[in-house]
Parts: sequence; C-alpha cells; structure tokens
Amino acid sequence: MRIAVDLLGGDDAPAVVVDGALRAFGADPDLRLLLVGPAEVADELIAMLRPDDRDRVAVRPVREAVAMTGDPAALVRSDSTIRAAVAAVAEGAADAVVSAGSTGATVTAAVLGFGRWSGVRRPALVATLPALAGPVALLDVGGSLEARPATLARHAVLGAAYAAVVYGVSEPRIGLLSIGTEAGKGDRARRAADPVIADQPLPAGGRYVGFVEGYDVALGSRADVVVTDGFTGNVLLKGIEGAYAMAGGPPAGGGAPRAAALLGVAGAVVVCHGAARADDVASGIALAAHLHRRRAIAAVSTLLAELTGANRITDTEVTA
Amino acid sequence: MRIAVDLLGGDDAPAVVVDGALRAFGADPDLRLLLVGPAEVADELIAMLRPDDRDRVAVRPVREAVAMTGDPAALVRSDSTIRAAVAAVAEGAADAVVSAGSTGATVTAAVLGFGRWSGVRRPALVATLPALAGPVALLDVGGSLEARPATLARHAVLGAAYAAVVYGVSEPRIGLLSIGTEAGKGDRARRAADPVIADQPLPAGGRYVGFVEGYDVALGSRADVVVTDGFTGNVLLKGIEGAYAMAGGPPAGGGAPRAAALLGVAGAVVVCHGAARADDVASGIALAAHLHRRRAIAAVSTLLAELTGANRITDTEVTA
Repeated sequence: MRIAVDLLGGDDAPAVVVDGALRAFGADPDLRLLLVGPAEVADELIAMLRPDDRDRVAVRPVREAVAMTGDPAALVRSDSTIRAAVAAVAEGAADAVVSAGSTGATVTAAVLGFGRWSGVRRPALVATLPALAGPVALLDVGGSLEARPATLARHAVLGAAYAAVVYGVSEPRIGLLSIGTEAGKGDRARRAADPVIADQPLPAGGRYVGFVEGYDVALGSRADVVVTDGFTGNVLLKGIEGAYAMAGGPPAGGGAPRAAALLGVAGAVVVCHGAARADDVASGIALAAHLHRRRAIAAVSTLLAELTGANRITDTEVTA
Repeated sequence: MRIAVDLLGGDDAPAVVVDGALRAFGADPDLRLLLVGPAEVADELIAMLRPDDRDRVAVRPVREAVAMTGDPAALVRSDSTIRAAVAAVAEGAADAVVSAGSTGATVTAAVLGFGRWSGVRRPALVATLPALAGPVALLDVGGSLEARPATLARHAVLGAAYAAVVYGVSEPRIGLLSIGTEAGKGDRARRAADPVIADQPLPAGGRYVGFVEGYDVALGSRADVVVTDGFTGNVLLKGIEGAYAMAGGPPAGGGAPRAAALLGVAGAVVVCHGAARADDVASGIALAAHLHRRRAIAAVSTLLAELTGANRITDTEVTA
C-alpha cells in the first residue's frame, strides 16, 4: 500500500503536509508514501525519518502548485503536483491520492486522470461524522455545488454504497437534507429530488427515509447517509466543526472530519481541508489507507454497476 | 407590554405552549399575555396562575389551528389563531406575536396583517447565536428559501440594523456565508450576491467583510451578522444545535436558539421551532418582550428608511 501525497496542496503547505505525513507514517507501520512535490521538500521529510524507514518512501519530483483561487480546469496544469499524484495512481505507482489543495482542482485532476464512473456526472465528496449510533456519511461536502435532482439522486446511490462498504452498514438508511421532515418541505430542489430518490433502487438494501434535518447529521439518529448539495454540505460540516470548538472540543467519538473521500471517479482520492493542520493531513492519509485496505472504491463501483445493470437511471437531469 | 401567544401553534400545542407561557410569565413580572386560541385552553392556563396574576392575562378565543404542511397562503384562514394574534397586534391589543406554528403560515399572516416594509419583498427570520466575542445574527433561517442576490443584499441591510439595535453593536461586520473566504468562492448565487452587497451602503456604520464560513456562525470571530438563504440557514442552525447535543450540551453562553425574530414586516413577530418545548416557547416570549422593550422593530425600520432615502436599492432582482 502506497499513498501519493501532494506536498504543495493546502494553505500552509508544504510545512503542514510534511508534518502530517510524518505523523501518519509513525502511526501506521504498513504505510508507504509517494511524496509528490519539490525534491528538496521530499528530501527534508526523508531526512527526518529513521534510516530503516526510508525505504517506505518514494519521491516524484514536481515543482508546480495549484493556487486556491481561479478556474480549477485552467489551473490543473499537466505539471502540477495534483496532476502528478493522480497520474502516479493511474500508472499503478501508488494506490490513493491525498491532497489539501484546491478542491476544485483536485476534482478536475481526478476526473481527467481517472475518468468518471458510468452514470456519474458529478463526483461527490463524502465526509464521515461520528454520531451516537454509528458513523454518518454526509455528501456532497463540496465536490459540486449545484442541487440538481438527478445529482442528489445519484449521490444517494453513491452514499448508500459507501456506507455499506466502508462502515459495513447493511440496509443503510438514506435521508435527504431539508428544513422539515414532512413531505413537501424544503426548497424547489429538494421537493423535486424527493420523489426521484424515492423511486430509484438503492444498492446494498439501502432504504430512503425521506427528509432529515440539520440535527440528524450530527446526531445520526435517523439516517446513515445524508444527501445534500455541496454548498449546503460544506457550510453544515464547518458549522458543526465550529460548534464543537465553541463547546470546548469534539465529543469523545470524534468531531467533524477535515478530510473527505471523493466518490465517482475510478481511483481513490482524499481531499483535506485547505486550512488543514498536520493532524488533518495525517487523518486524510489514514482515510486513504483505510479506503485502500477495504478496496472501497472498487467495491462501491461494483455495487453501482450491479444497480446500473438492473435499471437505467443515470445522472442526467430528470424533469420533475 | 402584552405579548400575543398562539396557543395552537407547534407540534405539541397546546400543552407546550401553555407550559412555556407559564414559565415566561413566572420569569418576568412585567409580562402580560394575550392568549389566542380555544377558550378552554386559555382557561386551563389561567387556572394555574395565582389569583393576583390573573389580571396580567387576557384571552382572544379562536378555534382554528394551521396545519404544518401544505400551502401556507391557503392555510392562513381568517379565523386561524395566527391571523387572530397578528390582528390583535395590528389593532393595538398586543405588542408582539409569538407562534410555534408553521413558519410559512406565520410569515404569510404577518405580511397580510402588518404589511411589508418598503423595499423588502422577502421578510427574513433572524436567529441570535451566542458566540465567543458576542452574539451573531444569522439570517435567513427559514423566512424564504431562495438565494436571490437582491434578497441576500437586502437581508444584509436588515441584519446590520438588527445587530445595531438589538445587540447594541456599532459598525456591525456583515459576512456572506459561503464555502471559502477568497473572492470567487461559492455557488452562482453567492458569487452574484457578493458584489451587490459590497456596493450597497449598510446602516449603523455596518461594514461588509465578504465571505465567511460555517465555523464563523458558531464562533463569531469574523462577523456580527451572517447572511444566507433560508434553506442553508435553517439547516446550519439545526446542525449546530445537533452538534451541541452531541457534545453533551450547549456552551456556557447558550446554544443554538429555537426562536427567531421576523424582520421585514411592520410588526413584532417571533417564530419558535415547530418542535418547540416549553423552554423554547418561553424563550420566544422573552425574545418578543425584549424586542418590544428595545422598540426594535420600529428602530430597525427607521434605520432602513434612512438608508432607503439615501439611495434607491430595493429588493428586486438585480441581473448580475
């Protein structure tokens, strides 16, 4: 298992990425890293390792970072660290990519380098929140920002498969985030998406439970998977993080994650928060390692393909 | 000071409303109530009061409740409790309305009974979150659900005036909720609203600080007022509430409120959460009393009128 780490991704790169990689490396003796970035940054990291550990690290020298602003497609130059990290996985030189760089650039690089899964137009970022009864998958937390019914419906399928594969939940409960639980609650996008999700089959015995609310994401009582658009999901995830900070720290089971898995492309990608600290980068690397150990991306893709074989719903707009 | 209380508003009405009214009544010796609902419910409440206190309560008998679902406009029958409560304030028989009934029905009743302020097409619900450096006003938390740039811009003005009047903040800082702080971050609605808000004057010396994120609503470090659409605001408010519950309880300064003030109509209205408990109803009544003591609605309206006199920006759609 080898994780490709984008040394130049994130507001405080490369320092926090180096620190985070060192922490992840120390915590997991099976972990191998492919450092993607300037050779001198990689060398600095390697110099901090015990000599015995140095053969667990390889380097792919690249000089270009991707800025956090502007048009992601234009910024994803072929010589950027994120493009090189994705290429390393596509070539088989690594098993998963971790970056704290621009989310838009990472998603674009992953789509270009891995390709989308059949039937998925908009890859989704899925965050795992520890809740009372078990983990809750919240998606999308920023992969795409529009709330089209077909995208929400497709993300419900992705989330159900993810919960089954990564959390081992059988018959996962899928909720659509809205502002009340009664049918008809919510804005036009949710009212349009509700019947579309209700009418489609879900993988792994997943069941659609209808609308859920903001509390349910933190508490997890009503759904294992909460589906929303990437704008609302990102705002909510950060709001929950702020609330835990305000309350004096996260609950015992863990707080709001600062690393999320990308679903919908044919490769394992973990996106860390742009303002990631070393711990966040380490968590992201650990998540990537966990996804690889579970063969999660392949397993989710298989569940999706089985479902797509059984019916023809794809992520193209449905007129409600 | 007399607060009109909708006895039939809320999922657990009238029981929790009666309990909440009794608590509010016990906590504030200057409070007077106008109970709007079935006479037998009002009589039951009055029977629980000490004889000395009974002259602080009046009754307006009404039989009809408004259901939580369906089209609010159709549901706001002229003989509903919420219409009667608004009418009581419009006639001068009470000073403010409190309801835990359907938000849509309450907003519609308030618009019909009080009229909108000039230049405000979409009244906003504003929630106050206690944060580290002082209160944060979050609006809209469910008054309207669409994220039109002109509505967000108008709500920035309402929020600035509210923070100045109700919290006594001079030169309030106004932020627009998005998924990153750099210019250009966010969905189409935020990117379009950002320059519109930046270009408009704000009351009370308010300053627009640009994009803020989910954390800033709970922590309050970057803005005194956070503007968003009612869908996102409602989800976020409930997410923060869930996080506090998950963390073992709200922080010392107080948690996410379950009562919000309506801004944009010519009368004082407080909307409590539909699943309000007695404490929430009591908080809503206390908020209504506070708004009345500060003459908040009139003062916000005056700030708004001064600003509207100085320029001609109104809440009609701006083509970005």
